[in-house]
Amino acid sequence: MLYLIGLGLADEKDITVKGLEIVKRASRVYLEAYTAILLVEKSQLESFYGREVIIADREMVESASDDILANADKEDVAFLVVGDPFGATTHTDLVLRARALSIPHTSIPNASIISAIGASGLQLYNFGQTISMVFFTDSWRPSSFYARLAENVSLGLHTLVLLDIKVKEPSLEAMARGKIVYEPPRFMTVAECARQMVEVEEEKKEGVCGEKKLAVGAARVGSAEQKFVVGTLEQLCEAEEEMGPPLHSLVLLGWRTHDLERDYLREWALDKDVFDEVWKRDYEGKG
Amino acid sequence: MLYLIGLGLADEKDITVKGLEIVKRASRVYLEAYTAILLVEKSQLESFYGREVIIADREMVESASDDILANADKEDVAFLVVGDPFGATTHTDLVLRARALSIPHTSIPNASIISAIGASGLQLYNFGQTISMVFFTDSWRPSSFYARLAENVSLGLHTLVLLDIKVKEPSLEAMARGKIVYEPPRFMTVAECARQMVEVEEEKKEGVCGEKKLAVGAARVGSAEQKFVVGTLEQLCEAEEEMGPPLHSLVLLGWRTHDLERDYLREWALDKDVFDEVWKRDYEGKG
Repeated sequence: MLYLIGLGLADEKDITVKGLEIVKRASRVYLEAYTAILLVEKSQLESFYGREVIIADREMVESASDDILANADKEDVAFLVVGDPFGATTHTDLVLRARALSIPHTSIPNASIISAIGASGLQLYNFGQTISMVFFTDSWRPSSFYARLAENVSLGLHTLVLLDIKVKEPSLEAMARGKIVYEPPRFMTVAECARQMVEVEEEKKEGVCGEKKLAVGAARVGSAEQKFVVGTLEQLCEAEEEMGPPLHSLVLLGWRTHDLERDYLREWALDKDVFDEVWKRDYEGKG
Repeated sequence: MLYLIGLGLADEKDITVKGLEIVKRASRVYLEAYTAILLVEKSQLESFYGREVIIADREMVESASDDILANADKEDVAFLVVGDPFGATTHTDLVLRARALSIPHTSIPNASIISAIGASGLQLYNFGQTISMVFFTDSWRPSSFYARLAENVSLGLHTLVLLDIKVKEPSLEAMARGKIVYEPPRFMTVAECARQMVEVEEEKKEGVCGEKKLAVGAARVGSAEQKFVVGTLEQLCEAEEEMGPPLHSLVLLGWRTHDLERDYLREWALDKDVFDEVWKRDYEGKG
């Protein structure tokens, strides 16, 4: 049996009791480690599980999935995924391959940022589609997120923005010299995301994510160091220190709000006067 | 400390290792038991935890929350919530009360139907706002869901529909006789939901949820008995037996689809010829 097991969001103890039982008895244990990361190292998982964990990078999952699935018709193979196995990144391709090979499979769900963002106090019913934000470079500044964001904004819905992470990215400079060297991991911050949003708004000018819009910066959701910071995008552009270490996500607020959401968020406002003023002007009573 | 702990979706082993450690050491353990249920009885939780669990019904949470919070500044109180503590039903009001009393609080996330529905193979990025469907009665047929559904449909987004459950509902007939008797629990089925959707479409006629629309029926998501059934709403209206026991949810498909979604869903089609025909006509290449 192939088991896709969600690990939750923070550390080795966020696995479910059911998931842990499978990890302990499986023949092989893989960890998908290129689309999301836990806040702890692989070694901490291994010592908690009492066994070896094989890192499955993008290349292995995309090109060598049959190695992962080898003998899974006769023995148990665990494929660990940070968050939920079908959360922000789905592993439907691996399951389709298992189906084609007649390998039985099942999944053990866990917390995903898509639902755990509810800890911000924002009601999940009021969220529209989720979008992701990639790191802009000098030559690549994809603004396709803007159209989807605009759809949510026009309906007054909140938008969860998932921020880019770069792990095991080959250095282009080293490649030019014929070598494969990996760049150190990079995690987009709320401030970087806010700056990219404001920048694209300045080009497009449709009033979607200008600097006076309210947003929630979320850091280390699901961990004991979870933190929410609330402000205008302009304020969040500067909030490097307030947010602390990765991982970060951002929610752009829609105007279809509830008073309970305001009461919940206000506690975390970078500046309560600014929050009150902007809320009253642009959000209150609009739902 | 007040701990809001997600229990996940199916049984006693879906709690996280971290959550279980807190349950074992807390002074008191409450189970919120009116907005969602596990697929197992309270006694099974109690025997797994090795301790008593206090049922917190709506009345207790809404009117006697200070009893739940008593002494939580000095000792640990666990408040268990099926799914994620801030999932489909949020408990922000309990947290706001804790804040007002200066009681420290934290939450332990877990799987919510809002993310676990990804096991259907539908990409969570392609979902719009979540809606809920209540049981219609002869005199109360709220169709406000239709406007929100229409918003998602116009954007081509999938819609997760959460289905009504009725637990501990007083019998109106008995109340008329001056007695309080509770009705047996009721759980809306996919077929009932599909019938209500088609019925409202017949009134409103905006092409939002007519009987030729494709939808996914989901049963017992997150459990070993998880099942997905795919068909038109017309087909799902009749799919009582195929779905099996509760809990059910439904996803109305949007046209913004991916070929991988089709490949994944087709396996579960009630009739693959009908699925292929409707997909080709109304969904394929529309994204």
